[in-house]
Amino acid sequence: MTRLPTSRPSRVVIEPVSPVVDGGRFPAKAALGETVTVVADVFAEGHDAIAGALRWRSVPAKGRPSKWVELPLHFHVNDRWSASFTPAKLGRHEVQIDGWSAPAETWRRGTAVKVAAGVDVDVELQGGIAIVERLLTHAADHGTDDDVELLATFRSQLAAGDTSGLDEPQWADLFWRLEARDPVATLPAPLAIDVDPERARFSAWYEFFPRSRWSTDDVDDIDDDGHGTLRDAIDRLDHVAEMGFDVLYLPPIHPIGTTNRKGANNTTDAGPDDVGSPWGIGASEGGHTAVHPDLGTLDDVDALVAACREREIDLALDIAFQCTPDHPWVTEHPEWFAKRADGSIQYAENPPKKYQDIYPIDFETDAWESLWNALADVFRFWIDRGVRIFRVDNPHTKAFPFWEWCLGTLRREHPDTIFLAEAFTRPRVMERLAKVGFNQSYTYFTWRQASWELREYYTDLSTRTVDYFRPNAWPNTPDILTEQLQHGGRPVFVSRAILAATLSANWGVYGPAFELLEHRAVRPGSEEYLDSEKYQLRAWDLDDPASIAPLLTRLNEIRRSHPALQHLHTLRFHDTDSAGILCYSKTDPAGVGDPILVIVNLDARERHDGYVHVDPGSFGLGLGDDDEYEAHDLLGGGTYRWQGWHNYVDLTPGRGAAHVFAIRHPADGAT
Amino acid sequence: MTRLPTSRPSRVVIEPVSPVVDGGRFPAKAALGETVTVVADVFAEGHDAIAGALRWRSVPAKGRPSKWVELPLHFHVNDRWSASFTPAKLGRHEVQIDGWSAPAETWRRGTAVKVAAGVDVDVELQGGIAIVERLLTHAADHGTDDDVELLATFRSQLAAGDTSGLDEPQWADLFWRLEARDPVATLPAPLAIDVDPERARFSAWYEFFPRSRWSTDDVDDIDDDGHGTLRDAIDRLDHVAEMGFDVLYLPPIHPIGTTNRKGANNTTDAGPDDVGSPWGIGASEGGHTAVHPDLGTLDDVDALVAACREREIDLALDIAFQCTPDHPWVTEHPEWFAKRADGSIQYAENPPKKYQDIYPIDFETDAWESLWNALADVFRFWIDRGVRIFRVDNPHTKAFPFWEWCLGTLRREHPDTIFLAEAFTRPRVMERLAKVGFNQSYTYFTWRQASWELREYYTDLSTRTVDYFRPNAWPNTPDILTEQLQHGGRPVFVSRAILAATLSANWGVYGPAFELLEHRAVRPGSEEYLDSEKYQLRAWDLDDPASIAPLLTRLNEIRRSHPALQHLHTLRFHDTDSAGILCYSKTDPAGVGDPILVIVNLDARERHDGYVHVDPGSFGLGLGDDDEYEAHDLLGGGTYRWQGWHNYVDLTPGRGAAHVFAIRHPADGAT
Repeated sequence: MTRLPTSRPSRVVIEPVSPVVDGGRFPAKAALGETVTVVADVFAEGHDAIAGALRWRSVPAKGRPSKWVELPLHFHVNDRWSASFTPAKLGRHEVQIDGWSAPAETWRRGTAVKVAAGVDVDVELQGGIAIVERLLTHAADHGTDDDVELLATFRSQLAAGDTSGLDEPQWADLFWRLEARDPVATLPAPLAIDVDPERARFSAWYEFFPRSRWSTDDVDDIDDDGHGTLRDAIDRLDHVAEMGFDVLYLPPIHPIGTTNRKGANNTTDAGPDDVGSPWGIGASEGGHTAVHPDLGTLDDVDALVAACREREIDLALDIAFQCTPDHPWVTEHPEWFAKRADGSIQYAENPPKKYQDIYPIDFETDAWESLWNALADVFRFWIDRGVRIFRVDNPHTKAFPFWEWCLGTLRREHPDTIFLAEAFTRPRVMERLAKVGFNQSYTYFTWRQASWELREYYTDLSTRTVDYFRPNAWPNTPDILTEQLQHGGRPVFVSRAILAATLSANWGVYGPAFELLEHRAVRPGSEEYLDSEKYQLRAWDLDDPASIAPLLTRLNEIRRSHPALQHLHTLRFHDTDSAGILCYSKTDPAGVGDPILVIVNLDARERHDGYVHVDPGSFGLGLGDDDEYEAHDLLGGGTYRWQGWHNYVDLTPGRGAAHVFAIRHPADGAT
Repeated sequence: MTRLPTSRPSRVVIEPVSPVVDGGRFPAKAALGETVTVVADVFAEGHDAIAGALRWRSVPAKGRPSKWVELPLHFHVNDRWSASFTPAKLGRHEVQIDGWSAPAETWRRGTAVKVAAGVDVDVELQGGIAIVERLLTHAADHGTDDDVELLATFRSQLAAGDTSGLDEPQWADLFWRLEARDPVATLPAPLAIDVDPERARFSAWYEFFPRSRWSTDDVDDIDDDGHGTLRDAIDRLDHVAEMGFDVLYLPPIHPIGTTNRKGANNTTDAGPDDVGSPWGIGASEGGHTAVHPDLGTLDDVDALVAACREREIDLALDIAFQCTPDHPWVTEHPEWFAKRADGSIQYAENPPKKYQDIYPIDFETDAWESLWNALADVFRFWIDRGVRIFRVDNPHTKAFPFWEWCLGTLRREHPDTIFLAEAFTRPRVMERLAKVGFNQSYTYFTWRQASWELREYYTDLSTRTVDYFRPNAWPNTPDILTEQLQHGGRPVFVSRAILAATLSANWGVYGPAFELLEHRAVRPGSEEYLDSEKYQLRAWDLDDPASIAPLLTRLNEIRRSHPALQHLHTLRFHDTDSAGILCYSKTDPAGVGDPILVIVNLDARERHDGYVHVDPGSFGLGLGDDDEYEAHDLLGGGTYRWQGWHNYVDLTPGRGAAHVFAIRHPADGAT
């Protein structure tokens, strides 16, 4: 006979629903100021009342965990319960769920029904007195004076056969606090949640190459004045801030190798004047902790960090763990690189292509311990200089166990750091990087262009992976000028910016190429820019009247003033009559209303019109199926009076191809 | 600084996909003779080759686990891998997944590409020789003579600059067997799979009340001859077997209490001749281990078990853990029942309704240990008499931890037992019962009647919960005569039988009420039968020409001869032009073809016609989009020549309202 449990298990079972990543194997993600809603299925056999609590606490890397904070679980439907809290500290948190039998509530509910049905309840009243006396005993030690007074009065009423107190509203809270939770059910282990800085959840990134020249720089001629510097970057911050971006991301700022350096347009015959790719890291001047002499000095980095901070911008550096043949590590630590059979160092290749300017790091080296520590030290070097955000280049070519250790270690030391994974590879690989610790992730957004593609992709992102994968949507990057951007003209730049900024709580652009509508590819069929800044200096005329900087500015303004757009959880797509029109809404998950409805014509050339079908109830404004409401266009201005489920839109490229509506109850009036 | 791992972790990560229940908290389910396919996402960073293995073993309750059997994982798409095995023993099994870097394959693949591109591979050949020599060393101890010979030849070829062997097909298997798996990645713990008898997966149940009278009984007048017996039940087995049912399920056969006994049609004023409900268990003659004297004796049970076995039928007994006031436990073990405040035993109630003929068992009793053991002993008592299948009444009103312990214990003692959960309650509760050990579950099938309802429900059953929840579909039960059956006439009995028998691998009917189209409800709005056998004796004329026994017989024949219908995993719905027509297909998951396509007019009254839209590729016959194929109607006879995705059907109630097609490649010819 199999042994019985050592004590009677609780009748209550708890099945965690959200947030939970791989059954608890990885922490879920939250952000400072964000409401965390924990959902679980909690139930027992039969129909007796049960109750439950959410407990949460902060578990700092150093020092003791905070005290558990306990909140009542609220019932929804079909055994689903939830409770919400808003963490006030960065770093690791834990949540635990308790469930227990609630016999006092079972008694109260059953007796009230019997009283209402006119059934004799003499025996129930006797039972009730016993229950109230048990609660009174507990209240003497753990309750308030009010609790004791309420219960004593209730006992007297019941003893006198007076059942009028059964339906008083106070019992729910009082029973929850004072009923014996014996035995209590819990999850086998607490679930971990990592609380990140707010900017991990909601951010707008702007990327530029500091070595290129801007018309706003303090020079006579933007075309002739050579290499831009970090000091120039400081001067450009106002432009970035005015557009409303809050993360400035610079490609690698380190010395660039000369051996096998790439020339303009990625040619292999670089001349002495070719500046090389910033991702070709390492030269005699140093490696991952050095600054390219033409860009400036470590002091300039400090000045840039400080200047960013004044504008509430975060500086994001690019960390690309790879080396040119000239990187100091190649001679100092040859054990970190794989060898070919002839003893030479293995260069990067994608057979039969060879990339002899780059030596990948060998994550299967026997010297993995010194390697891992050295790589973590690169982050620490820049963290010590005030940098808190890192865009990690090609993380999917470095071992997952390394990232889990490295990011976990750095986050324990500095819970205010943010890491963006630059990986456009297989879905499971991108998801794993997010699980092991990356706070944000590049996405397939760039290539999701049809209505059904965007709907399917963002439905997946906002449901299946939402507890750990934070998409950062980019219409372009220095590596990706999509066919659509090459050939669609200004309407595509406009619609892609609107989509990225409103579908994703995190978005970014590579500028000034983006706002200046740069669309020339190096050759047909390629997504590489012609005369790419990756390989040469460029000059940008920011005063170009074609610039869509005003649109980017407006989008960032809208995002800041509407909490609905600062989250992903509430994204919901709506049907439209036209496959060319995408329609979706978001609401503020904190429940303070402010619904946003976005409708975009995805066609760069053709007008599309038709009905969009939106459940007015989905706005959270208490609207019924046939109610009127106001749709105020935050982009184009104007306020429409809409009604019910079906409303007509007419969207023409170049002349208002999108609506970003703030939805308001008509009673609130137009503004 | 956070400590490094004690040794370099494997680059490979493994994320289990299926079968896995709540991250491994509960065992998944399989059955003897069923192919178990284990699916996992297995990947490493970058693009180097990896390889993986599935290991599985039997872990009997007594004795040592069997040796691990190892199989190669096969790659599908997007980092998804799988391997399949067919367990040959009942009881607990474990599966584990291994993953490792495959540098020999990385080298072979990359070198072959370079050779094809005409790139110089001198250094690659040197590297290859080193790899082959490593494999040779390993092959000397662990490989075959053939391995050694192959590798030696290959080494000589490479040394001579001959690359012709690179693309030989043998390397995949040889590298998989002989490459160093160092370090190897595994799941943190093996996943458990419980292997049940085949009948847990594929069964056809027939329920009848042995105390009622059948026209086939050896009596003069079926209406006047009193109480049927277990000996009568033996005589009826041929009818059950001829219809093709393989589980005979009897309502409780125990002595029935007299205190507050219910009369005919559930009245509360039973007279001395009222037989009472079989679920009112316990009288002076005994309780859960006694046989009702009017039904027979324990010897008769033995005879019935033996007679069933002769016909390859399993006898299923009903276990209902509740007691009448006359049950021996009430006096012998008053501690197992809750008390009211006046000291009397708490009867069942659903306030304000009282069920004073039933005392529920108190799972929160302090005497839970003796109670749990006594309940398990009830099962053991019948198991010792040869019963292997139990239909458990109202399991959702007994504590989940009890079931997890009880079913786990019994299954370790008797892995050939099968438990069906009679629970038509909240979805999470029904799912939990399956997780904690019930092999089969009643479902909402009975109330899912519209096309979209059936599609949505069975899509969920065949995907989300398929690893642990086995639906047993019943068109009727003694408790459930749906409105649809009451008013839809014969066409509804026909369509519901076809749906139950072909949607579900497990199905059952409560007869003879079902095949004789009994449809009279006790009152409008009720799902209770008029003159229900639950409260009185009935007489059934099996020779009624309206009987649909021939249809049930044919359905069970079709199910037996078509493996596609013996599983749930491959169920797939197809679009139709008419909301009144449901269309779905199944294929044999073992991959030997035999697709079945079912098309049912769900409307009891109206003819429906229109196109059904089925991907010919989904049949697994290698059919292209425009190919012709044959649809042979297993129900109505006749063979249709269909082509491509869109084919027309015309279904009229009463005159062929459904097709159950066997789909054949036209080359196979009609039979």
